Parts: sequence; structure tokens; C-alpha cells
Amino acid sequence: MTKYVYLFKEGNASMRNLLGGKGAGLAEMTRLGLPVPRGFTITTEACNRYYEDNETIAPEIESEVFATLAKMEEITGKKLGDMKNPLLVSVRSGARASMPGMMDTILNLGLTDKVVEVVAELTNNPRFAWDSYRRFISMFGDVAMHVDKSHFDAAMDEVKAARGVKGDLELNAEDMKEVAQKMKAVYQQQLGKPFPQDPKEQLLTAVKAVFESWNNERAIYYRHMHDIPSSWGTAVNIQEMVYGNMGETSGTGVAFTRNPATGQAGIFGEYLMNAQGEDVVAGIRTPFPITHMAEQMPECYAQFKEIAATLEKHYGDMQDMEFTIERGKLFMLQTRNGKRTAFAALQVAADMVKEGLVTKERALMQIDPSSLDTLLHPNFDQEALKAAKSIAKGLPASPGAASGGIVFSAEEAFEVTQSGAKVVLVRTETSPEDIVGMNVSEGILTVRGGMTSHAAVVARGMGKCCVSGCAEVSINAEAETMTIGDKVFKKGDWISLDGATGCVYDGAIATKPASLTGNFATIMQWADEIRELGIRTNADTPKDAKVARELGAEGIGLVRTEHMFFAEDRIFAFRKMIVAKTVEERRKALAELLPIQQGDFEGIFEAMKGLPVTVRLLDPPLHEFLPQAEEDIVELAKALNITVDSLKTTIHDLHELNPMLGHRGCRLAVTYPEIAEMQTTAIINAALKVSTPEQPMVAEIMIPLVCDIKELQFVKRVIVKTADKIIKESGKSLKYKVGTMIEIPRAALTADEIATEADFFSFGTNDLTQMTYGLSRDDAGKILECYYNEAIFESDPTAHLDTKGVGQLMRIATEKARAVKPEIKLGVCGEHGGDPASISFVNTLGFNYVSCSPYRVPIARLAAAQATISQKK
Amino acid sequence: MTKYVYLFKEGNASMRNLLGGKGAGLAEMTRLGLPVPRGFTITTEACNRYYEDNETIAPEIESEVFATLAKMEEITGKKLGDMKNPLLVSVRSGARASMPGMMDTILNLGLTDKVVEVVAELTNNPRFAWDSYRRFISMFGDVAMHVDKSHFDAAMDEVKAARGVKGDLELNAEDMKEVAQKMKAVYQQQLGKPFPQDPKEQLLTAVKAVFESWNNERAIYYRHMHDIPSSWGTAVNIQEMVYGNMGETSGTGVAFTRNPATGQAGIFGEYLMNAQGEDVVAGIRTPFPITHMAEQMPECYAQFKEIAATLEKHYGDMQDMEFTIERGKLFMLQTRNGKRTAFAALQVAADMVKEGLVTKERALMQIDPSSLDTLLHPNFDQEALKAAKSIAKGLPASPGAASGGIVFSAEEAFEVTQSGAKVVLVRTETSPEDIVGMNVSEGILTVRGGMTSHAAVVARGMGKCCVSGCAEVSINAEAETMTIGDKVFKKGDWISLDGATGCVYDGAIATKPASLTGNFATIMQWADEIRELGIRTNADTPKDAKVARELGAEGIGLVRTEHMFFAEDRIFAFRKMIVAKTVEERRKALAELLPIQQGDFEGIFEAMKGLPVTVRLLDPPLHEFLPQAEEDIVELAKALNITVDSLKTTIHDLHELNPMLGHRGCRLAVTYPEIAEMQTTAIINAALKVSTPEQPMVAEIMIPLVCDIKELQFVKRVIVKTADKIIKESGKSLKYKVGTMIEIPRAALTADEIATEADFFSFGTNDLTQMTYGLSRDDAGKILECYYNEAIFESDPTAHLDTKGVGQLMRIATEKARAVKPEIKLGVCGEHGGDPASISFVNTLGFNYVSCSPYRVPIARLAAAQATISQKK
Repeated sequence: MTKYVYLFKEGNASMRNLLGGKGAGLAEMTRLGLPVPRGFTITTEACNRYYEDNETIAPEIESEVFATLAKMEEITGKKLGDMKNPLLVSVRSGARASMPGMMDTILNLGLTDKVVEVVAELTNNPRFAWDSYRRFISMFGDVAMHVDKSHFDAAMDEVKAARGVKGDLELNAEDMKEVAQKMKAVYQQQLGKPFPQDPKEQLLTAVKAVFESWNNERAIYYRHMHDIPSSWGTAVNIQEMVYGNMGETSGTGVAFTRNPATGQAGIFGEYLMNAQGEDVVAGIRTPFPITHMAEQMPECYAQFKEIAATLEKHYGDMQDMEFTIERGKLFMLQTRNGKRTAFAALQVAADMVKEGLVTKERALMQIDPSSLDTLLHPNFDQEALKAAKSIAKGLPASPGAASGGIVFSAEEAFEVTQSGAKVVLVRTETSPEDIVGMNVSEGILTVRGGMTSHAAVVARGMGKCCVSGCAEVSINAEAETMTIGDKVFKKGDWISLDGATGCVYDGAIATKPASLTGNFATIMQWADEIRELGIRTNADTPKDAKVARELGAEGIGLVRTEHMFFAEDRIFAFRKMIVAKTVEERRKALAELLPIQQGDFEGIFEAMKGLPVTVRLLDPPLHEFLPQAEEDIVELAKALNITVDSLKTTIHDLHELNPMLGHRGCRLAVTYPEIAEMQTTAIINAALKVSTPEQPMVAEIMIPLVCDIKELQFVKRVIVKTADKIIKESGKSLKYKVGTMIEIPRAALTADEIATEADFFSFGTNDLTQMTYGLSRDDAGKILECYYNEAIFESDPTAHLDTKGVGQLMRIATEKARAVKPEIKLGVCGEHGGDPASISFVNTLGFNYVSCSPYRVPIARLAAAQATISQKK
Repeated sequence: MTKYVYLFKEGNASMRNLLGGKGAGLAEMTRLGLPVPRGFTITTEACNRYYEDNETIAPEIESEVFATLAKMEEITGKKLGDMKNPLLVSVRSGARASMPGMMDTILNLGLTDKVVEVVAELTNNPRFAWDSYRRFISMFGDVAMHVDKSHFDAAMDEVKAARGVKGDLELNAEDMKEVAQKMKAVYQQQLGKPFPQDPKEQLLTAVKAVFESWNNERAIYYRHMHDIPSSWGTAVNIQEMVYGNMGETSGTGVAFTRNPATGQAGIFGEYLMNAQGEDVVAGIRTPFPITHMAEQMPECYAQFKEIAATLEKHYGDMQDMEFTIERGKLFMLQTRNGKRTAFAALQVAADMVKEGLVTKERALMQIDPSSLDTLLHPNFDQEALKAAKSIAKGLPASPGAASGGIVFSAEEAFEVTQSGAKVVLVRTETSPEDIVGMNVSEGILTVRGGMTSHAAVVARGMGKCCVSGCAEVSINAEAETMTIGDKVFKKGDWISLDGATGCVYDGAIATKPASLTGNFATIMQWADEIRELGIRTNADTPKDAKVARELGAEGIGLVRTEHMFFAEDRIFAFRKMIVAKTVEERRKALAELLPIQQGDFEGIFEAMKGLPVTVRLLDPPLHEFLPQAEEDIVELAKALNITVDSLKTTIHDLHELNPMLGHRGCRLAVTYPEIAEMQTTAIINAALKVSTPEQPMVAEIMIPLVCDIKELQFVKRVIVKTADKIIKESGKSLKYKVGTMIEIPRAALTADEIATEADFFSFGTNDLTQMTYGLSRDDAGKILECYYNEAIFESDPTAHLDTKGVGQLMRIATEKARAVKPEIKLGVCGEHGGDPASISFVNTLGFNYVSCSPYRVPIARLAAAQATISQKK
């Protein structure tokens, strides 16, 4: 029988998939003998079972929960609902991957009208007891029963108004009791039933609420953003309550073993005395730096430092911990690998290797390759920054440079950016509801909250610039303005944020490219030592080629020869070619294009000298190059010296119902071999010009959209005939290769035939994915949102390679091709070539290389190394 | 070492692939001891080798040809170019499949300036010798050297004019010599070199010409029309000449063992005395019926009859034979299975079983399933026919009913029919160049030529109505008119042909459905006894369902629920549904559609009562239902009571770049589950209404365009919830199934997952083919022509299942699905479901059924039986 519930002491760190990150961390800390409040975890499998059973908790799971609860009661000596020694618990979510703030938590569970009195007596603190009860009623009503929180807040406000006070702390025990009573009345009124007085009923309802929260909107959005499958489910942790709000010897905090923004070694974090954990994370009160604790609670601090060091060493990674001090006693509530900025990740990795804590391999595995992206994007130009006026300073919560128009709500951020505008989101504090708006903003500025506030944590996760706790900013929500000093900023006014310093600037500031030395260079070198995949780039210009080479590209995997034709000075000649009515006319127009195209190739070959370059023959449907608007058609007809009607006929003839499945790719070369001849001539001439005996140029000519070997044979004949003639006439020697893209399912299925004619295969996973799914990327928008909401798709298959379907075709093609030609070179040049998960997959197939956009080259280098490391295990 | 050349006596009937049909027939007849002029065959492999070697004959093949020639010379005692006993040969093509008149033939090869004198002396017939020589020069110049035939004809005409004669027969030996000299001069003038005097050079050139003719335009077209792969190649037959034109005891003829138009038993054919074989086939002189030979050449006739009987028995099929009588001696020049009309095919099959000549299985294998099509199409309404005026009568060369406007050339037929017009092609005689024009015409009427003329043979092959040898018709090519009696018909005037009687009518005549009793019923019954595949139909209306049921359909494999919405009275309600902005509005519009849709299903279920019916949920993209023209948009907006702008926005929003890969199929049901609910309601309500305890209705609900199991799960949940509720409320019991189409590559690749949720799979091979090829059927036109010409594609993959690629996916899906659910029902409902080759393929996969359009049901029944028979072997 499946075991669905584990006491903390029954679990360990390796059970993360089953117990969730939090549950596994609590179990491991318990195992290590650290001070952890006792409790148990309901597994992620129970969550999946809950959904399988149409959102009900199966009887066997229910009885297992209560049986385990009984064991916990025995261990703690406390009992849920007991009138002598009542057990109070927290009920928290905890998925396999950290999803901070996305799901639900209920604290103080076990309080009832009777138990609250017992607690008041036992703690000798009636105010604390009633405060806890009213918190529980409100949280339970909100989270488990979906009563709008504002109804409960109103009850609190009423009592405050009646007492003529403003802060919660000014309310005494009697006041809190009144608040609790009023909140119970709200509960009854909103739900038509009384607040439950049976703690076991409370518990089951809370567990159900946590399961439900796995599928709330923001959790779905977060999962989708971070590629977390909905099938993982969340675990639920039931844990004895400890209280950081029991007076001046109590407190609560959050800390990292190293600085998550910079990577600097040494404990880094914040705490609040006489507060509950949520107060720190929510950023309502600005907390103290953790170092301050050394003075305030020296013993606890020393103990905590030791625990932190133990955990970091034990996990071999930077830890992110939560703790609570209850009347002078330290309790650990969480430990997990800490989220960090890319900058910090490099620093931590480099330091931990230097400190001898981890191997290079292990250090590389700690870094999220995708996060490197943030390092490659420009930072503020330092000269421009000096000239700019810093108008305020907050906490450097997440590095990066952001300029944009001010917006004051997440919804507004989303709306405004739909039209392509850039915004900076300014909030008093952020909450999990703001996640969509944060994601579309350039940067986030908050008035309250520390380095571990919601805004800071989420922004770092997104690699998004964030300045938090900037108290100099004063927001007038109603007027939609913010004031700094005496300057009033309206909605839409531009400001800039420097996430590395916490500085806020008036207006926009110029940026400059990132520098990639130091830790970056070190880590890349380690990655290069380990990885087996070659990394090439997709580049269409000498400039792109140079950038990619600097970022470590080992060649070009894809030069798209059509992008060149869109340029103002070429499109005309190209259009002449398209409207040509005879082969002779077409040849004439092509002759004009030849020197232009040859010049482009020379530039690219020169930039990549000594490295291989794959040039793809013309691919897109010709209609893409012709105008659609009436006035453009008239103008073009005049320029081409043909009638408007004739041009319109040509445009009409070129129109296709499904151009992706139409007259494009090698089909152009088959119907108009003279185009392939011209392109081959340009490639070979350019290669001859650039090639030297010391650095011989190897041009790789790639034929797109092949679905049958005979197409490849036909076009290859044209290429070889043209190329060999030119080379012979030049009197020089030059090697070239002819290969094909595998981007049509049939090409993959008949790869054993196609391979016999190809020197290399480059998988065009963009088209291959679209055809394998029968789903056009351009038209998928409307469908995808609904598919994510219904958890039909977990991620966009054009972003992450679908290993099950598309990957299966790639495996079939690889096996078939290698069976007839073991030496065939295999690569990927679709956009998946820069995606770590996809890179990991093609590494399992033993591909020779991936090719990606220039700025993703470092990501691919690291991802390739990680693939090798994890697949060696 | 490969053997490329076989003496006739070295071959046999089983070597058809290697020796071609003609070569294998000559070898088999030689083996049987029949009188066959001696010779040898150069294999089809030599032809392929010729193309592999860039259109040259490899030295080893050349020497093998001459070595075999030497053996032939030894056997015959004659020698090529010999001055005492010269060998003259014919050089004829002969592919694996018969391609009448499509490739080249050269006769009288071996004649030179010197040899012609020897022949004149040996035959004591100088006129015959010189006539043969001038024929050879002209044929060689035309066929092998591509000199336009008109140049040679001009030489002949010159001599005739000088002599003041009209017919060839009026020229004497001297005249013929002059013609030959003039033709040699033409040859020299056109080619800049003399007519070759080395018979071996003549031979190699002729062989080369035959190889080349494999790829002439009309051969490519014919192959494409009959799905003959270009990789088969043609063999070349070198055979000692025998002459039917050596005077009144010589002759030549063509005969069938049974009547190829009606199937009637008894020798049927035609011959001409003192003529060469080509004269009969070309239809220049109208020949005698073969029975006449019994009087004219009784001994030869008796011998021929015996040979015919032997051959029919030996081959177990109706034979098509060519023979020549040289000075009273009979020679067999060819035997092959005879082409016949569908009507004749049924008769022959039924008779041969009755006569005990073949088994039912063998008889079924003789019938081309596709040809049945011609029997199913309407014939002239007999009442209308009686009222019509027969204006002329020719030979009933190929049965069927045709009405159309007159055209006088094949080119014109092609042009006029491009716009959808119907034409009857009227020609003095047809030639192989006319094949394209014949194919697009409704029927063919020729003035000259018999039942075995080119027009007759080709028309029967095409299942096209043909009246030949209608001497009452007089064509004025220049004026583009034809006269019958005193009535002049202009181009475009309508006439009608009855291919079964040979009658020609003025104007159009009404038609009525074919009757399918007698032999048709017998053959179908045999097919049903043998076949393993179920045959269903694709039908969207009760009428189609009834027709299909009468034609033997065992259920419906595909009801397209969208076709119904296009009807005038429904489209408006459907459009309201499309433009709905909210779920409520959409539900309201759907409620209007529900009774209409339910009524349709009731009608279809009633028509198919007792048999299974598969209904597919809404499939096409919604934009297909909205107007595009401005005026239609304005009208619709008014009717819908919305603004034109609002409607235009909806239309614009629905526009997709690649609609085939867009928002359609089950994606509609996922985004608008209320549509699936309405359709399920309509299906289940209709099934409940029609179902009786005696004839329970089993509705099969089919979900289209699934690419992932989760889509299927989602839509299935909607269906099951809706259906179960209705059934429960009805208080009746009703079974229904839920299955899916497999039409996206990914669905095939993940069939093991999808099968767990599906009661059945129906392969939508139309879409599956398009996606597997990355080629849209709607846009392929421009490409396909070029692809056929370059032999990249042999046939349209949407017409014949591509077993290599698409079939591979089907095999993968079948194996994966059966591995997890052995009982899953598998079918095909794409257009391939009615294609014999495709049916044969799915029979190898062990599918449960194919579903095709109503009129293809009999074809599918026969094809399925053939598949079982041939796969049992």
C-alpha cells in the first residue's frame, strides 16, 4: 500500500520529489539533530491522488493523516483540541521546486473557542492567545474558505476605530477577543455556518485548501514561467507551532549562508523580534540585518551561525533558511538551496570551489544556465550614470539596470507593456498577486520590505532588477503619483533603477554591454573543459558572428540567407527576381544579387575565420518579400516598370493558404534551380576569397525543408555542379560540405535514406515541432493560454523541446542516420539550441553540436557541461 | 556480375520485373514452343544503369548486347549487315507495366544502302525493300534523332506530287527508292551527318532512344496517371523482323481472348492484310474483325485460335495478343493480360470461374478495383435516351455515358476544362500525344480506328467513354467544325456519346444511377467472403448514408459535423455562435443549433440503423464560416445586429497565418467546451431516439486533431459528463464510444498514451500526410508538377498513402496502441480509405476497417479482398 504520510523523522533530503522541498528539508534537519519543531508531511502523491479522486481526500489518506497525527501527539505530549496541553500546528504547502508565496499557509490551527482560553492560561498571555485566534480565523476563512480578506480586516478596523487606536499593538487582550468574536460572526455571515470548533475538521479543511492552492491562478502562472510540471503536486507540512511573537525574547528571521545578490561569503539575512515569520517575508515592517542579532541574542546567533555552516556544508550549496526564536529558544523552520542572482551564482560557485567545499562539477551544477542571460545584457553606462542624479536609495535587492515609465499596479504594468512600452513597477510592497505584472516590468521599486521580502525574492528569481525598502518614496495611490523629496512623479514618468547599488534615478540612462571576465570567464572555462557538445551560433551578419565568437561560439550553425534580402538596398533586386516571368529574367535579377550576397558571406566568413560556417539556402515563401498595402504595390510596380495589375497577379499567385506548408525551403531550389546556383556561387566565391592555406575555410551548404531524399539529390546535384566548376576554374583547392535540415517529420522518419546523401544533419526544431504538433507558432497564442490553464500543456513546445514526441522523431532520425553513416555530423539550429533542457536532451542523443543565438552561447556552454555531468552519474 | 541481356529462350513469365511485360511474354511464349520471331531482351536494370551512368550505355552492357546478338545470329543463321542473309530487327520498349504507345519503337533496323539491295534481291520485291528502308530512315530520324517527322513526310509528299499520285500504294519501287534517297538527304541536312550505315551503330542508337523514351513527357504523364514508379525502367526487345506487308498472304492483327469492352467469351480482334502492325494500332485504316480471318486465312486462324486458348489457360487471364502473318506463316509478337473495361472485367472474372479456369481468388485479383468507379457513375437515363436522336453510330470502344461541348484538339480539351467545363474530344484519330486531353474529356469520339485503335485502348484504360471509327463524322480542322449528315457542329456545341452502343447524340442527355446487380453483385459477394477489413463510409447526410449502405458500407466511419452548418438555413445560427463574445451568448446560439444538429443525426442514424456510426466533433477553423467580401460582411453585421467594425474585428481576430495548424479540431472543444457539450447532446439525444432494443444504436464520438493525451482527456471528460447525464435522465440504456483521430504526427508517436483513453483510433491520413510531409494540399499544386517532371515525387502523397513516411508513423502508432490496448479498434477515414494501394497497406497493419466516400465502397470491398489474397501468399 502506498504510504502517503511521513513523520519528519521518517524522511530525508533525497525524498524531495515525494515530500516537497520544505518537507525534505525539515526531515533532513531533523535527521541531523537540529532543533526543528516536530511534525509530519503529507506527500505530493497524496496531492495527485486528491485530483485523481475529483478533489476529495481518499478515506485511506484521511486515516493515515490522523494515525500520524496521533504519533506526533505522543511525541510532543500535546494533543489537538486538548484542554490541558493543546497542540497548535501550522499547515504549509511545499512543492518539489520552491514556489515562494504562490500557495497557501494556515497558522495557529487547533485553536477553538475553548482551546484559546487554555492557551491564554498556559502562556499566561491572553492577548497573545486571542491575537493568535483572530489571525487563525481570518487566515482560515480567507485561505481555506475563500472569504475575501477585506471582510475580516473590516472587523479589526471596527474595533480599532471604537478604541480610537491605529496600530494592532495598541489593542489589548479584551480588544483582541472582541476582534476574534467579530471575525467569527463574519465567518458565519459569509458562509452560513459557524467557524469550525473541531480541530480535526479544521485540519482536513486546511490540507484540502493547500492541495487546492496548487492549482490557483498565480501558482499555474509561476509553474508555467519556471517550467514546473503540474503533475508534480505539492506536499503539505503539518508542524507544531512555535511563536516568534511571544515577546521580546522571541523573534523570527530569514537568512542565507551567502549574499544572494552578490554571492559574498558570510551569513546574510534579516530578522524581527516579537514578530511572526510572515511579517518578515511580507515586508510590512523593515527588519534588522541578521548581524545585529549577535548583539541582541548572542547565544541564539552563535547557534544559528553554526547550524548555517553545517547546512551549507551538508548540502554543498548556499542555503536559504527560516528560523523562529520562541522565548529564547531557536527553531529551524526551513532550509533550502538559496535562489540567487546570476552574478551571485558565479561568485558562490567560484568561492565554494576555492574553499574546497565542492568540486568544479558540483559548482557548475549549482548555476542556472538561463540566469546567465541577465549578465549578458547591458548595464548602465558608467559615464552616463555619473552624470545622472540619484534621487533616492533603497536596498540593492536584485541587480540589473532598468529604465521605464512608472506604473503603480501590476495590472497596469501588464496592460501598458502589451503595446511594447517599458515600465518600472512602483509598489509599497508586492504580493504574490503581482507576479504577472512584475514579470513584464523592467524593474521593481518597493517602499517597504527588505532583501528577503517578496519583491526581492521573486525579482531575483526572475533575474529582474529590483530596489526594495526605498523609504524615501511616498506613493499616493489615489492620485497615481509618487513623491521623492519635493519632486512629484506622475504615472508614465521615466525613472531608472540600479539594482546593484539600490540607486533610483530621474529619467532614462544609457546602457553599455556587459563585461564577461573574472568569475564568468572562470566558470565558462570549467564548462568548456567538461562539455562534449560543440556550441555554434545562428548569425546572419559579421557583427553577430563577432559577438558570438567573443561569447565562445565555435562556428556558425545557421546563416539565414534571406534576412540579408530584407535590407532596404537589396529588397528591390530581390523583388525583381521574384516577379521574373522567365528563367532568363530571373537569372538577370539573380546576377544583380550575386555580388551583394557574396559580399555578405565574405564578411561572415572573415569574422569566423578558421571555424566552420553553415549557410542555409533560401528558405521562406517568396510572398513574404512582396508588399501587401495598395500604395506599396503601386510604388513597387512603378519601380519595376511593370503594371500594377501584373504585380497584383504575381502577389495573388504567390498567396498560400498555409505558407508554412507551402512553396518554400528546398522547394524553391527545385522549382528555381537558378537561385541555388547563384547562392552556391556566392558561397563558394566568398570561401575561396577568405580561405588561406593556414586557415582553410570550410563552407557547409545546408538545404532546408527536405522531405524526401530525391529532393536532396536534386538540389545537391545543382550545388555540386556549380561549386566544383568554380573551384576548378579558380585553380585553388577548397573543401565544402553539403547537408540538410531535418525539420519535416518525414525527413526524420526516412533519415536512413537521406543520410546517404548528407554530410550533416541540422535539426530545425522550430518547424519540426510545429509540424509534429500540427500547431503553428504564429497562431498558437489564443490556444496556449487556455491550454496552460487547463494544464494540457505545461510549457510552450516551441520553447522547450518536447522530448516525448519531437524528441522521439529526433531519436528515430539519429539512430537511422547513424546506422547507415556513423560519422554523420548532427546538430540543432532551432531555437531549442539555446535552451538548457533541450540541450540536455540532445546530449543524450550524442549530437555533435547545438547552434543558438549569440547571447545564448554562454548559456549553452554551461548547459552542455551540466548535461555531461548529470548524464555521467 | 549482373546479367543485363537475356535471349528469349533464357527467360520466362515470372521475370516480368526484369524483362518487362513484353519481354517476359515473348520469353514465355518461346518456352511454350509457340511461333515467336527470335530475339533477346535488354533488362530494365540496364535502363536504370543507363540513367545512373548519366545517360550512357556502360561498356559491359554494350559488349553483352553484341555477344547476345552474335548468339541470335547463330540461331537465325542471319547476320546484321550481312550481304547474303542480312538480319533485320525491331527494337521495342517494354516496361513492367503496359504503357501502350507511350514509348518508342524502331522497325526494320539493319537496313543500309547496301543491305536494302540484298533484301530487294532476296525477297524478289524491290518495292518492299525500299519501302522498308524509307520507313526505317524516317522512324530512326524521328524517334532516335528527334528530327521532326514532318520533314520526312515532306520528302514523301514531294515524290507523290512529282508522280501525280495520292496514296503510298501507288508508288513503285523506283519511287520508293527516290523517297528513301530524299529522306537520307533530309537526315543529313537536319543533323549535319549522314544516315548511319553501320547496323551496330544503328542498334546502339536505337536502344539508347528506347531508354530515353522512358522519360519523355507523355510517358511521365502516363506513369503518373497510373502510379508507375519511374524507378522501374523499361526493357528493350530486339527481335527478328517479320513482315505483314509482304503481299496478300501477309497480314497483321491484334486480338483478345475475350471482348475487352463487354467481357463476352470468344476471340475478339481485328487484322489487316498486307499491312504492318502499327497500321492497326494507329487506326489509320479500318481493319477487319478477326472472325473474318477464318475465311481469308483458315489455317492461320485455326492455329491462332488454339494459341489464344493455350495462352489464356496458361496465364489464367484474358490475353491481349499481337501477331503477324508473313507469307502465310503465323508469328506471335506479343501476349499480355488484356486491359478491359470494368464491365468486361466483371464478366470475364465471373465466366472464368464458371468455366473452371481460375479460382475465385484468382478471378478477383484480375479486376482493377479503381475501374469499378466507372460502373458506379450514372448512365444515360433510358427514357431520355429513347427521346434523344441518335445522329451517328460508331464502334462501342469503351462504355459509359458522356455529354459535353465539342473540342477538336487535346490542348483545347485541357484548356477548356481548366475552368470546369465538360468537353467531348472529337478527333480523326488519337495519338499518344493526346493522352492529357483525353484524360480531362468526358468522352472521346474518333472518325477512324477500330476497337483496338489507340483511342479505344487508352480510353478503356482510363475507364473513359469512347466511340471510335465513326465514319459518318467529317471534321473540318481549319474551320473547327464537324459535320454529321447535313448538320454542322461548331466548337463548343454539345453532343453525347453512349460508349456501350456506339451511338452519338445531339445535345446533352439526362443520366440516372447505375444498377449493380448480376456480375457486380456476384463479385462483391466473393470479395466480402474473403476480405478481413471492414468497409465503412464517410457520409454527412442521410442520403449519402443510404447510397453507401446500398453499395455495401458496414457503418459510417466519419460524419463531418461541420458540413451541415454550411447550409443556407443554418449558417446564420452558426455565425451567431462564432461572433459570441461571452460563454452565455455562445450557449444561447448553440441552443438554436442543437435541434437542427440533432435532427441531422437522427436522419443519419436512422439510415444506418443497426450499424455503427462515428461522428466527429467540429473540426475546421471558425473563420471558414465567416464571409470575406465587404458586402457580405455588411449584410451579416446587419443580420446579427452588430456593427460592421465589430464583425470585422472578429474576422480579423480569427484570421490565421497557417489555419491548418491553428485553432481547429479538438482545440475548439478545449477553448469552447460548450460546443462539445451541444454536439454531444445532439448525438446522444438522436441515438436515444433512434435506438431500439432490437437494433441498439452505438454512437461513436470522435475527437479530432489530438496531439496530446491531455487534450483527449479534457474533451472526453466534457463528453462523458454530458452524455451520462442525458442517458441517466432518459432512463434508457445506451452505449456510446469515445475515440480520437490520429492525424497529427505527435499523436501517432504518443499513441501508447493516447490509446489508454480511446475506444478507437481513426487515422485521418489527409492531415497526417500533409503534416508529415510539411506540405499543404491546397498549396502543393505549383510544386507537384515540377516534382513529377523531376521524378522527385511519383504520385501525389495525398492520393496514395506514402507507406515509407506516413505509413511508418501509422505502424508506430498501431504497435504502440495495441501494446497497451490490444482490443483497440483501428480505422482510416482519410481519402486514402478508398484507395486500393492504401487499403493494401492498412491491411498489412491489421486495421479493423477503412472508411471512404460512398461511391468508393465497392472499390474498397474488392481492394480489401485483394489485399487479403495477396498477403496470404
